[in-house]
Amino acid sequence: MNSAYDRLTARFARIATIGEANAMLGWDASAMMPSGGAAARGDQLAVLAGLAHGLLIAPEAGDELDWAESEGEPADPWRATNLRLMRHAHTRATALPPDLVEAQARANSACEKVWREARRTADFALVRQHLAEVVRLTRETAAALAPALGMGEYDALMDGYQRGIGVADVAPVFAKYEAFLRWALPQAEERQARDPAPERPVGPFPAAVQEALCRRLSERAGLDYRHARLDRSTHPFCGGTPTDVRITTRYDETDFAQSLLGVLHETGHALYERGLPAAHARQPVGEAAGMAAHESQSLIVEMQASRSDAFLSWLGPELHATFGGDPGPYAPANLGRLWRRVGRGFIRVDADEMTYPAHVILRFRLEQALIAGDLGVADLPGAWNDGFKALLGLTPPDDAQGCLQDIHWYDGAFGYFPSYTLGAMAAAQLMAAARRDVAELDAALGRGDFAPLLGWLRANVHGRGSLLGFNDLLRAATGKPLDPADFEAHLTARYLA
Amino acid sequence: MNSAYDRLTARFARIATIGEANAMLGWDASAMMPSGGAAARGDQLAVLAGLAHGLLIAPEAGDELDWAESEGEPADPWRATNLRLMRHAHTRATALPPDLVEAQARANSACEKVWREARRTADFALVRQHLAEVVRLTRETAAALAPALGMGEYDALMDGYQRGIGVADVAPVFAKYEAFLRWALPQAEERQARDPAPERPVGPFPAAVQEALCRRLSERAGLDYRHARLDRSTHPFCGGTPTDVRITTRYDETDFAQSLLGVLHETGHALYERGLPAAHARQPVGEAAGMAAHESQSLIVEMQASRSDAFLSWLGPELHATFGGDPGPYAPANLGRLWRRVGRGFIRVDADEMTYPAHVILRFRLEQALIAGDLGVADLPGAWNDGFKALLGLTPPDDAQGCLQDIHWYDGAFGYFPSYTLGAMAAAQLMAAARRDVAELDAALGRGDFAPLLGWLRANVHGRGSLLGFNDLLRAATGKPLDPADFEAHLTARYLA
Repeated sequence: MNSAYDRLTARFARIATIGEANAMLGWDASAMMPSGGAAARGDQLAVLAGLAHGLLIAPEAGDELDWAESEGEPADPWRATNLRLMRHAHTRATALPPDLVEAQARANSACEKVWREARRTADFALVRQHLAEVVRLTRETAAALAPALGMGEYDALMDGYQRGIGVADVAPVFAKYEAFLRWALPQAEERQARDPAPERPVGPFPAAVQEALCRRLSERAGLDYRHARLDRSTHPFCGGTPTDVRITTRYDETDFAQSLLGVLHETGHALYERGLPAAHARQPVGEAAGMAAHESQSLIVEMQASRSDAFLSWLGPELHATFGGDPGPYAPANLGRLWRRVGRGFIRVDADEMTYPAHVILRFRLEQALIAGDLGVADLPGAWNDGFKALLGLTPPDDAQGCLQDIHWYDGAFGYFPSYTLGAMAAAQLMAAARRDVAELDAALGRGDFAPLLGWLRANVHGRGSLLGFNDLLRAATGKPLDPADFEAHLTARYLA
Repeated sequence: MNSAYDRLTARFARIATIGEANAMLGWDASAMMPSGGAAARGDQLAVLAGLAHGLLIAPEAGDELDWAESEGEPADPWRATNLRLMRHAHTRATALPPDLVEAQARANSACEKVWREARRTADFALVRQHLAEVVRLTRETAAALAPALGMGEYDALMDGYQRGIGVADVAPVFAKYEAFLRWALPQAEERQARDPAPERPVGPFPAAVQEALCRRLSERAGLDYRHARLDRSTHPFCGGTPTDVRITTRYDETDFAQSLLGVLHETGHALYERGLPAAHARQPVGEAAGMAAHESQSLIVEMQASRSDAFLSWLGPELHATFGGDPGPYAPANLGRLWRRVGRGFIRVDADEMTYPAHVILRFRLEQALIAGDLGVADLPGAWNDGFKALLGLTPPDDAQGCLQDIHWYDGAFGYFPSYTLGAMAAAQLMAAARRDVAELDAALGRGDFAPLLGWLRANVHGRGSLLGFNDLLRAATGKPLDPADFEAHLTARYLA
């Protein structure tokens, strides 16, 4: 007779396997599917998601959890954490009335469609009522989750993306960063103005050559294509499953930097999935530790390692050998000036690593206010523009370059934005620890060799799965919880030294 | 309150939607997946198949069927047939004890693995016991299905691939064909020997050029790439779903005929899926009418239309314009001699359209004897070689070119082989009827225009879904049930005139 715990692992393995199928269908929808397949694909994804949800909220799942918990805390910490995470997933799923889940899904979908038109025409009024409905339902969702999880309402939303960190941890970290930015950004801009202007490599850079280069570099970073694919999609992403990761990019034949750095970013995500503990595959404890943890892995590869002086000294000659032409733009110092440039702009996804957190801090504060009911949707554009001016000194010329620019809120994703900056800060903190632990790390990057960094990440991050929450993972890997000092030190060294 | 019939349509729509997801994952496994994803993919396919099976055999499904049937025969023939097909699917699924299904799946999988080695080394003894176990379990399966379906045991296996036709229909048709072949094949060989030897176009034929050509021709045949993809795989196939069909091929840079004719074949399958009645999508009555019906659609495009004199007269100059070089081999008459050639050989998949049925007839007779218990597995190689000699006058040099050549039996597929020849015969019968009904059919093919043929097929085959069984479908479209006379007339005109 199987124990209740064994029955739970079988149940969660089935849920995860259905999730894998959906991940593959989602990848296909973005990278392969002809447009005529979209309607049927929506049904396929919804039916599978419904089956997985059904397995999670089934009364038997609750009984199995009660029974397994009554057997006492498992001695093995992986099992103990797995059981806690199963309960956590069950609590989140059962806290929400099915009608609310359905209403939220419908409102998100309707709002997101109208948002596309509103952004195109920079007309917030067009989507205002839809967004108000999304916010109303999100507040209901948060109100249902908070007591079940024993946390604040906004924290309960954040928890859906990154377990183990909440407003009380994040707000002071962001406030510290805001203070840093206030003096560091003008100084970085000043220093940059004294530098020679970077030279842009001159193309064309054929897509097939870029693709081969991207593949080769992601392999150097550690991606094994027996368990991965690289394809094209409009919006680059990392999808698939731990034994079959699918990364995508797009190619601009006038500028190879977008695909090159984009693929290195997605490779960071992919290496995390590849490095998850296989012994706990398809169990909650075997999954990645959350969205912020995931972003730390893409950014440690893209921002920390790939834009380091050491790696650029190796990469420059490689790029020149690949594309030919004038060697000047491929000089490592020039690549540094080109790819490590600060600048104030309105659009988050175009922002450099120093100003990016300002975009996130603005959204973090506004969405807290929206969820708390302190800010009405009608007042969002004004609050956005005021906040943007306060943080970066600029006023968006229209809402398309302001509060309409991101899909997230209009698709019901509140509590996600902080993950980007938590990831960036964690990446700097992890890189600093890796450099302390692994003496030859930069020397290896100077030979185009990621192996020492990857080895350290596998031991300290990837292989831990979800055994630890965000701050505990950082504590175990770096000796302290999230601390913006390492990120600030990184930016200081890179932009102010 | 929904009627029982409505609840059944919702249930079968869910089952079909899960099936669509599995079809996509199967396509991905063959056309995209890196090798390292195979183990997880196997689990994904099995879990989804299990969920679909669970919905089909659920006690509630039986209750809904009983209730719907008690409401009386629906007046709409689509609904009436749909209900019958639902019952049929439920009967097939519930007739088999779960232990038997599982044992069969395990035995098939084990046998198929060993078969690969046995075929490689031409060593039947290696796989004999595995095949004996597969046959034993298949006989148990047939014995369980036959009384539930009210048909013979081998018929119950055939029914799993092609509903509406059984041994009593097929055996006399095949006997007639055997008699035809006995005089027609030597005569065709004699006539062919008097013809000039065909010239082979000289390559190389770059894969990218072949791919563009294949795509263009499949579009001319009627495939709409807003609802389709063309990719590469080791074993060409047509997969996907009706609104998103996925066809594959492989490219040999020394010979474009394989990809060209292969893609036209798969296009025939794809057009059938695309033409199924959308109003009955995801319902049993909205599916293709069976494997033989499906093969008739690939063969009517590949064998009947694409190798017709009319189409070759258009295709020859197109090919020469595509590949250049000496125009001689692209002369329509030469293409005819090249692509319409009879010849006795050991391997079914390499056979021409005249000898192909002999390969099928042999297998049809042997598998009936195996299922009836009249032939033991140990005696299979001898019986194969005797039968082959009797039908085609040759003795296979070893079992790799004899009873080990096909995967089907070693993977538990008994009752499938007849579909190939039933499809070939039906294709000829349908083409003859289409030519009678549509005066300009060949004139259009002579302009590379498939539209009149496709229009006729949509009205007479595709759009009927599974409303009719195989013989009834032929009767509605051509005025008679399956009759080998049209196939014989086609071969006579093509090879003996």
